[in-house]
Amino acid sequence: MFLMNCWYVAAWDHELIDSKLLSRTLLGQRVLLYRGESGEVVALNDRCPHRGALLSHGRLEGDGIRCMYHGIKYDATGKCVQIPGQDLIPPRLRVRRYPIVERGHLVWIWMGDPERADPELIVDFPYLRDARWKGIPAYLHYDANYLLIVDNLSDFAHLAFVHTHTLGGSEEYAFVTKPVAVERLERGFRVERWHMNSDPPPFHKKVIRNKYDKVDRRNIAMMLVPGIFYMETLFAPAGKGAERGRVEGTKEYRNCQFMTPETERTTHFFWAYLNDFEGDDSTISRSLLDSLIEGFMEDKAIIERQQVTLEEDPDFQMLAIHADAPLAHFRRVLGKLIEAERAEAVRASEAGVTTGNRATVDAKAAATASGPGG
Amino acid sequence: MFLMNCWYVAAWDHELIDSKLLSRTLLGQRVLLYRGESGEVVALNDRCPHRGALLSHGRLEGDGIRCMYHGIKYDATGKCVQIPGQDLIPPRLRVRRYPIVERGHLVWIWMGDPERADPELIVDFPYLRDARWKGIPAYLHYDANYLLIVDNLSDFAHLAFVHTHTLGGSEEYAFVTKPVAVERLERGFRVERWHMNSDPPPFHKKVIRNKYDKVDRRNIAMMLVPGIFYMETLFAPAGKGAERGRVEGTKEYRNCQFMTPETERTTHFFWAYLNDFEGDDSTISRSLLDSLIEGFMEDKAIIERQQVTLEEDPDFQMLAIHADAPLAHFRRVLGKLIEAERAEAVRASEAGVTTGNRATVDAKAAATASGPGG
Amino acid sequence: MFLMNCWYVAAWDHELIDSKLLSRTLLGQRVLLYRGESGEVVALNDRCPHRGALLSHGRLEGDGIRCMYHGIKYDATGKCVQIPGQDLIPPRLRVRRYPIVERGHLVWIWMGDPERADPELIVDFPYLRDARWKGIPAYLHYDANYLLIVDNLSDFAHLAFVHTHTLGGSEEYAFVTKPVAVERLERGFRVERWHMNSDPPPFHKKVIRNKYDKVDRRNIAMMLVPGIFYMETLFAPAGKGAERGRVEGTKEYRNCQFMTPETERTTHFFWAYLNDFEGDDSTISRSLLDSLIEGFMEDKAIIERQQVTLEEDPDFQMLAIHADAPLAHFRRVLGKLIEAERAEAVRASEAGVTTGNRATVDAKAAATASGPGG
Repeated sequence: MFLMNCWYVAAWDHELIDSKLLSRTLLGQRVLLYRGESGEVVALNDRCPHRGALLSHGRLEGDGIRCMYHGIKYDATGKCVQIPGQDLIPPRLRVRRYPIVERGHLVWIWMGDPERADPELIVDFPYLRDARWKGIPAYLHYDANYLLIVDNLSDFAHLAFVHTHTLGGSEEYAFVTKPVAVERLERGFRVERWHMNSDPPPFHKKVIRNKYDKVDRRNIAMMLVPGIFYMETLFAPAGKGAERGRVEGTKEYRNCQFMTPETERTTHFFWAYLNDFEGDDSTISRSLLDSLIEGFMEDKAIIERQQVTLEEDPDFQMLAIHADAPLAHFRRVLGKLIEAERAEAVRASEAGVTTGNRATVDAKAAATASGPGG
Repeated sequence: MFLMNCWYVAAWDHELIDSKLLSRTLLGQRVLLYRGESGEVVALNDRCPHRGALLSHGRLEGDGIRCMYHGIKYDATGKCVQIPGQDLIPPRLRVRRYPIVERGHLVWIWMGDPERADPELIVDFPYLRDARWKGIPAYLHYDANYLLIVDNLSDFAHLAFVHTHTLGGSEEYAFVTKPVAVERLERGFRVERWHMNSDPPPFHKKVIRNKYDKVDRRNIAMMLVPGIFYMETLFAPAGKGAERGRVEGTKEYRNCQFMTPETERTTHFFWAYLNDFEGDDSTISRSLLDSLIEGFMEDKAIIERQQVTLEEDPDFQMLAIHADAPLAHFRRVLGKLIEAERAEAVRASEAGVTTGNRATVDAKAAATASGPGG
Repeated sequence: MFLMNCWYVAAWDHELIDSKLLSRTLLGQRVLLYRGESGEVVALNDRCPHRGALLSHGRLEGDGIRCMYHGIKYDATGKCVQIPGQDLIPPRLRVRRYPIVERGHLVWIWMGDPERADPELIVDFPYLRDARWKGIPAYLHYDANYLLIVDNLSDFAHLAFVHTHTLGGSEEYAFVTKPVAVERLERGFRVERWHMNSDPPPFHKKVIRNKYDKVDRRNIAMMLVPGIFYMETLFAPAGKGAERGRVEGTKEYRNCQFMTPETERTTHFFWAYLNDFEGDDSTISRSLLDSLIEGFMEDKAIIERQQVTLEEDPDFQMLAIHADAPLAHFRRVLGKLIEAERAEAVRASEAGVTTGNRATVDAKAAATASGPGG
């Protein structure tokens, strides 16, 4: 069960170049994404309603798409505009279209009721379009439910053990730091964590000159439904009072991570790690890209193995420790939103109202040309 | 659910040479096929009733087969004739045997009630044993339900888009040709389609001299349950009146295709594409074999992808266009035959009658030596 | 369904060297095995109860293990002894521990109620620690239910057909030998089989000088629940009266085989084939190891194929022949023991008693941090 009425990241904008027909499963639905001739990004259900052929194996024609099985053509709204050898086009022959918003190199998609797709609901991350912040947008695929990645990001103690030699720096991090404040938000949480007078972690060492000076390290992280993670990181010279205000020599990072469910057991993971101290070349961005991939692969090994463990024993009930408070709050918040959506769907269906979640089916037509075994 | 009481193609006869033990799953049942010493083709359930070992891993002895686990031997009727170390042979220890008819290089099998296996019910394709028609029998395996291949063959508009550069020739084919006549048959349909004054399609161009002259093209196709496709194709010099009778310079093809279900989601696809204008060597047959494989691989990509789509969303209901009329008729006819068979089985089982569809099980004996977990 | 309250072989002792963390699924449960600093073998459920990470991916610390996700540490009894960043340790945060007994190079494990884990219940095979008997302990993994391997060992007629050129020697073996005595035991059976005046089988020929002299061959095999096979084999010069007592020139073997279920469809297969006539080098042991692996691979091909056959058709009921009497008795005995265990579990759960089969779950705690989709 996914939250339907909210914005998910569907792609980075650079993924849709050169008329590429990108087929990507999102929340279990196969979606075709492309940039039409007019420049707008189009998102359609990637399945010809005639015989189920993939539209992503079709041909881009202007802003529309032609299925290359029997040649049926659809426009950018999903409406059928041509059936070779047939003059009359039945109105029910249309492809589901999903609302899209492009913002700051991100392509956001709304998988729920299109009527409610309000672009104002997107929680912005302005650094992605601010020339002062530099970095390389990236993508990883996870063989794990997206909430296991949310969990991972919800307790930074894991930096100490999983990422000792990459993003963390020392096992001490888990013992001597604690969240200064955990703030419960209506749609997520915010956590602040300080580590005073510590060695700079390996990924940071690689891109700074004074590798051996102690630093005061601060992470402010925010996690929002459905799976949006924004973090502001600061490294200041130790003992200069960074906890009271910005000090000379501070270096900062801005990090965004988007967990978009592909299926119940796989995830699209989009991320960028930006810095504010890079020169004109891209050396620092490239080094950070490498370091972050190195660190994320450490997470990936654990998280994908967790997925296997949970599938092996669906009855397994995890036991919480204190540090799981943010995680537990997030799951509660998300659970309530999904529950509300489901209750509303039940009410709507009882009242005979069509929601946007599912194309209506002409049962009579379907009966004349059903699938195998029909 | 498959239609049981009808003939399916199980193999080409050349597949059973040199005492080969061919194990082939047909309609979900594993069948052992071989040509015994006497020359007759034998089809037995490929499973020793003792402990379930494969008889196809056994040893051919005369017309019979010996299981090479504990050495039990069966004759060509499936009757047990030897148990090493045991004198008395229990009559229930027998392997199910399937009726077989060889005709025109095809090995036909009857998977239903053996009592009803009337060879007269085979719809013959005489060209396969007529020396005037030449061609190479071939086989492809599909990861798709057989009815998706039937669908594909039911609307030749797909030639225009799927096979533009192989079997089709131009996208125009879908727009300017229509079936001249669709004839609903009791067990299938017959379709005739003309394409006047057109460029010869690539596969035909490769085997004729006058590559640039326009042709009048005609396909007469017949599809019969369970999945038998016969087609007569004609290319005549354009504008000479081919639609009124045979004209000088006409070249013809005869094409048979047999879709035999392996399982609900996989299919054995047997076919031959014969021509009447080949000389003494096999150059034209070989070229046609290559062209047809090239074209069938285009279908295969789409059809196997359809199978995945349907498995991803079993609720997906296809929407028919006008050109799906033959397809819809075929599914209706087949559905009714399967339904009738099922109703009869229910009646028979209520009346306590044993049908030939399933070997009787001696429950008492089974209880003494059940499978794992028993 | 497995028999829980009995000893299974979990590993050979040499598998646990150099602080190796061995993760092995036994009866469907993932178990971590290691030899701690104190020298004792420890067996814990291989799953951190916090977030389900594998403890086998953790770090051995003394006799305990630290999960390397969030750094939680457990001692050799499974008790949590440290949570980084948290002082109070909830008592419910513990890992299930399994009783272990080391005996004669074997590591035995008890997967059921630990209270009943009586080492006296282990049926000993003293030859494994007797210097007079030499051989190399070995392991094979089977993609098949363990009872199919038990079946295989229950009827030695298969030696004749499966192992003609390796362990058997001739097809005659199936016809002219019969068990002299089949003894039904409370927890299995005992079979004695003689083959008089026969050619020595290939594996034996390879390690003896007088390859062409006829032998009297005797196998005494014992099979015990859950899947323990002990066999004493003797080859004596033919016609010297071996059936009445030991004769000069006799060569003997001792063979143990342990079938431990990994899952319902896979098996750990431990075995050793010992001889009493080896000199100071290991030539004979190595030759026997090779011969036995060669023979077991012949079984494996058949048995793994049987598994596929049974999964393809769960309704398939095997039909017994006379030689299946021991097999049928074994299945009956095992079935009754499992049934009794199950009935007891039902009674216990109705009486509100906690059995040792499953760790108790704190439902309240679990609700705050459930798995994906929760």
